[in-house]
Amino acid sequence: MSRTVVASETKTITIGFDQPFCVIGERINPTGRKKLAAEMIEGNFETVEKDALAQVAAGATMLDVNAGVTSVNPNESEPPLLRKTVELVQSLVDVPLSIDSSVPAALAAGLEVCKGRPLVNSVTGEEDRLEVILPLIKKYDVPVVAISNDETGISEDPDVRFEVAKKIVERAADHGIKPQDVVVDPLVMPIGAMGTAGQQVFKLVRRLREELHVNTTCGASNISFGLPHRHGINAAFLPMAISAGMTSAIMNPCRPQEMEMVRAANVLMGTDANCSDWIMTYRDHAPAKPAAGPVGPVAEAGAAPAAAGGRRRGGREARRRAG
Amino acid sequence: MSRTVVASETKTITIGFDQPFCVIGERINPTGRKKLAAEMIEGNFETVEKDALAQVAAGATMLDVNAGVTSVNPNESEPPLLRKTVELVQSLVDVPLSIDSSVPAALAAGLEVCKGRPLVNSVTGEEDRLEVILPLIKKYDVPVVAISNDETGISEDPDVRFEVAKKIVERAADHGIKPQDVVVDPLVMPIGAMGTAGQQVFKLVRRLREELHVNTTCGASNISFGLPHRHGINAAFLPMAISAGMTSAIMNPCRPQEMEMVRAANVLMGTDANCSDWIMTYRDHAPAKPAAGPVGPVAEAGAAPAAAGGRRRGGREARRRAG
Repeated sequence: MSRTVVASETKTITIGFDQPFCVIGERINPTGRKKLAAEMIEGNFETVEKDALAQVAAGATMLDVNAGVTSVNPNESEPPLLRKTVELVQSLVDVPLSIDSSVPAALAAGLEVCKGRPLVNSVTGEEDRLEVILPLIKKYDVPVVAISNDETGISEDPDVRFEVAKKIVERAADHGIKPQDVVVDPLVMPIGAMGTAGQQVFKLVRRLREELHVNTTCGASNISFGLPHRHGINAAFLPMAISAGMTSAIMNPCRPQEMEMVRAANVLMGTDANCSDWIMTYRDHAPAKPAAGPVGPVAEAGAAPAAAGGRRRGGREARRRAG
Repeated sequence: MSRTVVASETKTITIGFDQPFCVIGERINPTGRKKLAAEMIEGNFETVEKDALAQVAAGATMLDVNAGVTSVNPNESEPPLLRKTVELVQSLVDVPLSIDSSVPAALAAGLEVCKGRPLVNSVTGEEDRLEVILPLIKKYDVPVVAISNDETGISEDPDVRFEVAKKIVERAADHGIKPQDVVVDPLVMPIGAMGTAGQQVFKLVRRLREELHVNTTCGASNISFGLPHRHGINAAFLPMAISAGMTSAIMNPCRPQEMEMVRAANVLMGTDANCSDWIMTYRDHAPAKPAAGPVGPVAEAGAAPAAAGGRRRGGREARRRAG
């Protein structure tokens, strides 16, 4: 059983098959968030601060920290910006961090100042990346996200992606890094473009768990790219991936629907002992008003839940009595 | 691959691993619904009519029809009441029916008047039930729900429940009934009382599929019995059970959250071809307002979805450019 240990200065978290799902908050990332990028370039970290606090309040287990603003020379500009962002975030919240950059010098800068045992996001199967990132991982004795693509790009064939992951795990071992410190991202394809994307990734996660004994992560929302009502697809994808063995995801913890399904999946996987997180979170939950519209008319929906379980069970019992 | 065929007069539905999940609407059932029972005893079928129409409008694939009102002698009173209810429901909607009773004479009466190929709900592993119900199943050439308990009650041991299911499938075969006409209910235990109930049923469903080659069903909402916010647990349970191989459930289709997760699971299992049911149902879906309260504060949640996918993908691409 693979157990990946991450830590902040004060808090240790284990990622593993017998642990609650690890939610890595994705919000502190200026890639694709122009407004945030502009703020960070100007030295304005208000949004970073707000996002750090909000994600932890919403239930994030860890926070991903990326400072990849567009720049003429990211090798020069990104290291100090990532260092500063890491320092700021760890001064505000006590969850472990994921140091996220495509610039090795920025990862090194982040690692220098990060307390505890952060996750490094990420290395790919590309030779030049492996040769630069793995020594850094070994030097700081930290776990790393391994993305299953290489020089040839992202394969649509899950067997090829599995082989890339296997290569990274083996190369890590050559550097003295254990499999439990490699968290594989099997790469989630958009289901709207590839109808097999769901079953493919569930199968891949199961193989990664059973054959490579590694923990896994993914950019969960990629699955719904291009579809309407993406949160609905994401919300079903997470419990399905969790039941296949996925142990973490880089996602937005501020989305209530997705977080609710993660919490429910923890209950159903038996990793929320005595359902106590569920009960604490939802004990005062007011049932949603039955929605008209896309789901059609709703009859007596509010009265249904307790009756449903009772009725079904009653039905079984009544049957035995009558039979 | 097991394919269970059910039909109304005009509509044929296949239950199977390569088919959209079969939602069997549970509402027409007076067991545990005192008001409905009182109405049906008085000959008032207004609620039955409303529930039939509402469940089909909400997306039910089939409707369960039960007339088990409390009675001094159900063997006398239930057959005519179930017959009448079946006739009424099939005059209103065109989905296949599941004829639900613990009274063999009532099942026979329902089968006499039911057009098409209904499902019979249910037989258990109890000897007296097997000997009475299976000949009826054979006579009418219809599929049957097999509940995995016997004279000794419901075992908490999933291996025992598997053996009961196996016995029913074998006994059905002795009567000339094929495995594809036996839909096994592995019995869902409440997760609040038994922390392993989720993993237990997922494993059981996988075994039933791989070893007995049968379709499966369950009373889905039992899983959340006794917990707060039951719909959240049910909504995560369904996609997890579906990815384990569950092919139908007896549930309330008028609950939007559960139905949304079933539709999303169909997308993710590749049984909603081109995502067309999803797109038709949710193309005009307005994102839910971020909820404050149990899930904590929400920052910029409305703006997140498109950005999340784009950002993650952008991140990978940006990395390759910068690397």
